[in-house]
Amino acid sequence: MQKSEVETRVRESFDRQALMNTLGAKLDIVKDGEVHIRLPASEHITQQHGFAHAGAIASIADSACGYACYSKMEKDDAILSVEFKINLLARAAGESFLAIGKVIRSGRTISVASAEIFALVGNDAPKCIAVMQATMMRIVSKQGLNG
Amino acid sequence: MQKSEVETRVRESFDRQALMNTLGAKLDIVKDGEVHIRLPASEHITQQHGFAHAGAIASIADSACGYACYSKMEKDDAILSVEFKINLLARAAGESFLAIGKVIRSGRTISVASAEIFALVGNDAPKCIAVMQATMMRIVSKQGLNG
Amino acid sequence: MQKSEVETRVRESFDRQALMNTLGAKLDIVKDGEVHIRLPASEHITQQHGFAHAGAIASIADSACGYACYSKMEKDDAILSVEFKINLLARAAGESFLAIGKVIRSGRTISVASAEIFALVGNDAPKCIAVMQATMMRIVSKQGLNG
Amino acid sequence: MQKSEVETRVRESFDRQALMNTLGAKLDIVKDGEVHIRLPASEHITQQHGFAHAGAIASIADSACGYACYSKMEKDDAILSVEFKINLLARAAGESFLAIGKVIRSGRTISVASAEIFALVGNDAPKCIAVMQATMMRIVSKQGLNG
Repeated sequence: MQKSEVETRVRESFDRQALMNTLGAKLDIVKDGEVHIRLPASEHITQQHGFAHAGAIASIADSACGYACYSKMEKDDAILSVEFKINLLARAAGESFLAIGKVIRSGRTISVASAEIFALVGNDAPKCIAVMQATMMRIVSKQGLNG
Repeated sequence: MQKSEVETRVRESFDRQALMNTLGAKLDIVKDGEVHIRLPASEHITQQHGFAHAGAIASIADSACGYACYSKMEKDDAILSVEFKINLLARAAGESFLAIGKVIRSGRTISVASAEIFALVGNDAPKCIAVMQATMMRIVSKQGLNG
Repeated sequence: MQKSEVETRVRESFDRQALMNTLGAKLDIVKDGEVHIRLPASEHITQQHGFAHAGAIASIADSACGYACYSKMEKDDAILSVEFKINLLARAAGESFLAIGKVIRSGRTISVASAEIFALVGNDAPKCIAVMQATMMRIVSKQGLNG
Repeated sequence: MQKSEVETRVRESFDRQALMNTLGAKLDIVKDGEVHIRLPASEHITQQHGFAHAGAIASIADSACGYACYSKMEKDDAILSVEFKINLLARAAGESFLAIGKVIRSGRTISVASAEIFALVGNDAPKCIAVMQATMMRIVSKQGLNG
């Protein structure tokens, strides 16, 4: 199946987020208003006890929220995070982590999204380890932003 | 001058946070209730427009808040992030970023900290680009956590 | 049908929250892990433009989250709000407002809940005007708290 | 001394926030970028244990943050809360509560403020019982909002 204009646009932008590559995160599903990002567990994203660092989890959740909102915007728009809040529900242990971001409200200037982040282990049921609520701002016609 | 027991403890824990090394972050000042973490700007922590990714900024701010609270705890305690919220005030552009975390309340179970994150450019005055408010939980005697 | 022990306990506690009465809020549905609170629109809860004040909306959302968590606790426990974050998605205009709080994670010490707050007008579909993410703390055996 | 245009404008708007009157809150100091709101303790703002309800504390903190931002805006602008997050640091017990809101960043569209909320008892040093971080949006020329 051919990728939609939205999916192509989201994937191109994600590929420019060098932090995602640094962490090892991959863009998984891109739908209208919903974006999934997957992060394999690895030693280089850990905190002091060997779990994934809350900052790594927050990074993929922020990107998932941002791209979920971005999927609702116009072709020439850009997007910036205004703020986000994340609750860590359980230790981030698993083989990989999946952040699912969904638009709650897509506005002219301000959009709001939420994300659930799951730890995945083999065929076990995904375990929700964190939830995020995020506010994004649309930058009309990019206004001088590159990329 | 000799490092205090607290500073030694914080530095040893920070060294085990592999994510900090992956991002390029360095532990700077460690005081009683206050911790500074420095992150040089580099291509591998960027988002799609070439600024530092909000997740990278949140990562050092979370660690700065966590260690600020940890500096107030007992030798055998461990600490976990319960939640944090960050506002991005300006684009994260600069030569380096400095997160200053300070304890607001150090409690038996729950501690609260805030962080300011500054962008640094040459001898310019530091510019505050983000603020965080974070909740941390003390894990008494580590309860099975390593490190 | 007879009320469950949990519902009776939640209703008795709600009745002691004088602020709910001051605002005009009523406890609606109480289920295991989910609590609904209804607030009729009225002049005395408004902000400067005639909409319901964000603080009134936050008040019923905080109580809905708190009681959703409390419904999972033991008979002699008490509960306190650690923190909450609310996004206001649309102006709070309507005949009444309904906050639906649900437990996301019920922990030994820390519980996390989320709430959606809807504006209701006649037979129109409920409109989501705000979302909350909240952290609650269990106080075992009340530890000196009354009521 | 004569009140400034800003102070007059803030006070007129505050007087239209009927919720503040319902709670018993009074506008105290209004400075450029900083607003103080005082709330006497009273039975009608309590939660189940007799302390002030987190929603009452959040209400005055939200208004203090909003008016701190509003003090930086143009005469014909209006302001709406985008979101806020509050940490409750201690039980809200005291003779009265004082919310001090300060602008952190005043932007064209988005402003960010923080508030500290203190409990006051006699001549005791004020005790910080809560901290808020809030995001506000400027509505240029009010765009159809009354008041």
